Amino acid sequence: MRSAIEESVGALGLSSPNPPVGAVIVSPDGEIIARGHTQPPGGPHAEIMALRAAGDAARGATAVVTLEPCNHTGRTGPCSQALVDAGIARVVFAVADPNPTASGGDMRLRDAGVDVESGRLDVEARTGPLRHWLFTQEHGRPFVTAKIASTVDGRVAAPDGTSRWITGPQSRARAHRQRGQIDAIVVGTGTVLADDPSLTARLPDDTLAPHQPTRVAMGLRDVDSSARIRDDAAPFLHVRSREPADVLAALPDATWVLVEGGPAIIGAFVDAGLVDEIEAYVAPTVLGAGAASVDRPTLTTLAQAQRFATTDVERLGDDVLIRMARG
Amino acid sequence: MRSAIEESVGALGLSSPNPPVGAVIVSPDGEIIARGHTQPPGGPHAEIMALRAAGDAARGATAVVTLEPCNHTGRTGPCSQALVDAGIARVVFAVADPNPTASGGDMRLRDAGVDVESGRLDVEARTGPLRHWLFTQEHGRPFVTAKIASTVDGRVAAPDGTSRWITGPQSRARAHRQRGQIDAIVVGTGTVLADDPSLTARLPDDTLAPHQPTRVAMGLRDVDSSARIRDDAAPFLHVRSREPADVLAALPDATWVLVEGGPAIIGAFVDAGLVDEIEAYVAPTVLGAGAASVDRPTLTTLAQAQRFATTDVERLGDDVLIRMARG
Repeated sequence: MRSAIEESVGALGLSSPNPPVGAVIVSPDGEIIARGHTQPPGGPHAEIMALRAAGDAARGATAVVTLEPCNHTGRTGPCSQALVDAGIARVVFAVADPNPTASGGDMRLRDAGVDVESGRLDVEARTGPLRHWLFTQEHGRPFVTAKIASTVDGRVAAPDGTSRWITGPQSRARAHRQRGQIDAIVVGTGTVLADDPSLTARLPDDTLAPHQPTRVAMGLRDVDSSARIRDDAAPFLHVRSREPADVLAALPDATWVLVEGGPAIIGAFVDAGLVDEIEAYVAPTVLGAGAASVDRPTLTTLAQAQRFATTDVERLGDDVLIRMARG
Repeated sequence: MRSAIEESVGALGLSSPNPPVGAVIVSPDGEIIARGHTQPPGGPHAEIMALRAAGDAARGATAVVTLEPCNHTGRTGPCSQALVDAGIARVVFAVADPNPTASGGDMRLRDAGVDVESGRLDVEARTGPLRHWLFTQEHGRPFVTAKIASTVDGRVAAPDGTSRWITGPQSRARAHRQRGQIDAIVVGTGTVLADDPSLTARLPDDTLAPHQPTRVAMGLRDVDSSARIRDDAAPFLHVRSREPADVLAALPDATWVLVEGGPAIIGAFVDAGLVDEIEAYVAPTVLGAGAASVDRPTLTTLAQAQRFATTDVERLGDDVLIRMARG
């Protein structure tokens, strides 16, 4: 199952609005003979990819899948039937499908005489690549990560606007890897005007990553047609609103949205109760002046602070990444 | 040697301006038979404490000491001679004494026929409890740690001044342990007026710790005689200056000074190049308004940022402690 979870990472961002699933086919003597992950919408699901790779060797083998195989005929046929047709003897999956349209795969497999085990590494799978899709199924909106990259005194830019680079190369490389996995990245029109960011996902060699997030500018100001955010490298969307809910509504297929700033945009998402996770990159640098990472102009007292729970701390070169989830 | 370093922790804060040294006496069959650490000025040094505890068993034994035994007759006699007189056969020490008045103990011991080994765990000892004293010997001023306790967006108080508590109980307990080891704690007169802090070191049961730091208020404003910082629990000093150098000059015996705030005081120390280490306690809380932890009103651009190097990251409950040293 760990191999299947690992395989599913490759589907992050590509599969939305479908779940990023991973599957491996294991021979009767315990060897992994094929792998697959969900392809972009309309393309094959993880199980189909793995079955194709396995070919005839699938007969009598075990399929290990991060999510219950679907029982739904949409743009693709039901995976549960495909597993039966390929002669798979046993299916092990982690997470039951919460989607009423697609669920029922477990039963269909059992009815066809396949040996089924559910719940294997359920927690690891839920908190892994499936996390954002499961959240979307439950809450009817995408999972929102707010990203902060600041000095240790909480500044994201000096008074003259200079901000390159506060965090180090390892932090920036991680941020680019993440952009290759998310559905959308949100900034304010003010940030677009001030910094003209491209917001693309780039590989270490500076070429474009295979998957690019939709770049969203939110706010009432116009975005110039020559702005980098509007170039051909990735999709672009201008949401002419200051309301975070309007932004999420404009992204109906998204399961994971990253809010990158500026401070007023992150503050608006916090005020709206729409930040599910914060990823704070803290650089060992002191500025002492300039904008702080989050701006909530209406806040007056400590009781209005929004508390999160630290989930993970990681060194990234000289920077520290603190991840925290809604408390 | 690790036992000797551990033993020396007990001298932190107590021994200044003398070094916080630890010593253990080891029997010929390798057993630790006595321990000792430096007592307050005028009292016995670590070696003498350990020799007294060992009694006759010191004859033929090994003395393990974090710092080269002194060769200086001050308020106490030279430790190197005391070790010879007690019949110690072998001396192992970590760090050579950089102080020309006190050094020479190594030679006196060898001349008396004692087997001497120097440099054992030198790095561990230098970066342990001896760190601040060694720094003072080299630089002629105390080592300065700036302490920050902020939200993840860098705020130390809400706009209405509320700031209790941003960090959690484990962070506060560590801060109290540290106060029991430092020589002085510095705040601005503005912080005294606004928060009326007591700045004492307290044990987990809320009683006063055995060692208390000198509480220093810096700034031009008066400190009311009823202010908690002036109570009988610990020494108090008012330095009527806004210059960090004046504060350090007023603490000639100090080897380790903690600057606790407010933001303008920490900013002044940063501007003066007098922050050797930052300890940043980051709480997983978002405020979005209120004072940031460091205020440097003259800073305009990122090139003026002061860069440090992350040395250590520690979880303290839900908070994260990031320690960084002058880069």
